[in-house]
Amino acid sequence: MRVPLPGLPDRVTIYEVGPRDGLQNEKTVVPVEVKAEFVARLADAGLTTIETTSFVHPKWVPQLADAEELLGALPATGDPRPVLVPNERGLDRALALGVREIAIFGSATETFARRNLNRTVDESLTMFAPVVERARAEGLWVRAYVSMVCGDPWEGDVPIPQVVSVAKRMMDMGCQQLSLGDTIGVGTPGQVTALIGALGEAGIGADRLAVHFHDTYGQALSNTLAALRAGVTTVDASTGGIGGCPYAESATGNLATEDLVWMLDGLGVDTGVDLGKLVSTSRWMAGRLGRPSPSRVVQALSPKE
Amino acid sequence: MRVPLPGLPDRVTIYEVGPRDGLQNEKTVVPVEVKAEFVARLADAGLTTIETTSFVHPKWVPQLADAEELLGALPATGDPRPVLVPNERGLDRALALGVREIAIFGSATETFARRNLNRTVDESLTMFAPVVERARAEGLWVRAYVSMVCGDPWEGDVPIPQVVSVAKRMMDMGCQQLSLGDTIGVGTPGQVTALIGALGEAGIGADRLAVHFHDTYGQALSNTLAALRAGVTTVDASTGGIGGCPYAESATGNLATEDLVWMLDGLGVDTGVDLGKLVSTSRWMAGRLGRPSPSRVVQALSPKE
Repeated sequence: MRVPLPGLPDRVTIYEVGPRDGLQNEKTVVPVEVKAEFVARLADAGLTTIETTSFVHPKWVPQLADAEELLGALPATGDPRPVLVPNERGLDRALALGVREIAIFGSATETFARRNLNRTVDESLTMFAPVVERARAEGLWVRAYVSMVCGDPWEGDVPIPQVVSVAKRMMDMGCQQLSLGDTIGVGTPGQVTALIGALGEAGIGADRLAVHFHDTYGQALSNTLAALRAGVTTVDASTGGIGGCPYAESATGNLATEDLVWMLDGLGVDTGVDLGKLVSTSRWMAGRLGRPSPSRVVQALSPKE
Repeated sequence: MRVPLPGLPDRVTIYEVGPRDGLQNEKTVVPVEVKAEFVARLADAGLTTIETTSFVHPKWVPQLADAEELLGALPATGDPRPVLVPNERGLDRALALGVREIAIFGSATETFARRNLNRTVDESLTMFAPVVERARAEGLWVRAYVSMVCGDPWEGDVPIPQVVSVAKRMMDMGCQQLSLGDTIGVGTPGQVTALIGALGEAGIGADRLAVHFHDTYGQALSNTLAALRAGVTTVDASTGGIGGCPYAESATGNLATEDLVWMLDGLGVDTGVDLGKLVSTSRWMAGRLGRPSPSRVVQALSPKE
């Protein structure tokens, strides 16, 4: 039944992260032609914005070592197909292939910056500045991820002013969108609402925000609902819920796109996504990964053994 | 991090349904001493209201055939220990054992009434009336469940006025609390909010409501958040997420108490529950049932293999 909830947006853009954030944490090596079919099926299901891969060094993420090959295999489209770019070398690779949208990936905490980027937060921001400057000069659209915005496995609670400070420095470089990553999934709706409010006071309005929740503690969809109420209209999700954070104790993955679409369909919020096609894509991909999808919707709509 | 969300209650009563609604749908036969220990552990974790069993005919629910034995094995306590009572025969059994709180179980739809109660909705209400009348005359507290309040596997969407009509007839009999059951887990937050609003207009205020969500489509916690915002302060949940609806295609169970407590703890909403003890109880019970808990929190806080 379709019943709107007052105060929610009419339309939400789903920023699909399955091919990049999802697959990068999967151990099964996925052939490039399967990845290309995955992206094509996602697009066919109505997802317009799909982060396809990362230009991180293959030594760190072997799963995405085929980034050039994958981009070459994807049909040209006017839709956004952002790729993750960790540094200037990555930007060179992206520009050489005509990529028009990139994302950089920062951390709100020192410990995760050191473990994931091998740098302090300051050093990582120094590394990003010329990437963003050049990208913007080339006319690219740039998203900034900030990870560990609700908690950090080593540091515990992450104070909101600390997240705002890092976020503001990234946005001041010229990024157009900020994705708030609760990388270990510990946040709850009050914290999410307060963080979005604090960012607004710092000049980063909800129209420039996206939220990126992991379902490690079952909180991803409630947190999304809170973010929508706070004015956010871009939500990251991973079809089939694939992926997860390799640094967190539990590897429960990203918010499943299907579970998000079920809620938004019920709320009458337009996403442009065909849930049936999405579920069928998830089941196909789960077969390639050799394990069932953790998405509740996929489980509910799949035939029982 | 504890960050309140404006508009939520300060305190929520968790109505624990694991021993009854959870176990009744589990295939593994659980010995009565394990059930008694389960209830004792739940109480020790801080759950004050625990629905312990059902006086339904053993032919229909063999798992709960030991209701008398279980109640005899539980220590006396001043806390509410409701039992499900399907009819006058069940009430006789409950009264004989000194039970002080009962629940009756109705359906918002004709199809589920026929399948679950072997009666039309009218016939089932006729059956309940003398049960409630006698129970109230004996000074018992009576809860009314209405199931299929968001959707029905055979009838599809269930119109809100239809739910309100059945609910009102049950409450007019003299029941003190109404538990709204989204038995197949299809509802979304707008529908939940609208239903609670419509019940309020019909004279059944949120202070007399409880919500009972299944996580079949991953919506249980978001729907709970919407219900809390609408003024509800009693939430049904099943420790470890055990149980499920045997009539729905997927057997994904009740909202896991742990996932609910995680959210409420983060929101600074008092429940009196110790999450650590609850998770350890879930893991113990999962061992007895021979399968892992579907609760995300239990999975996240359990050691990896």
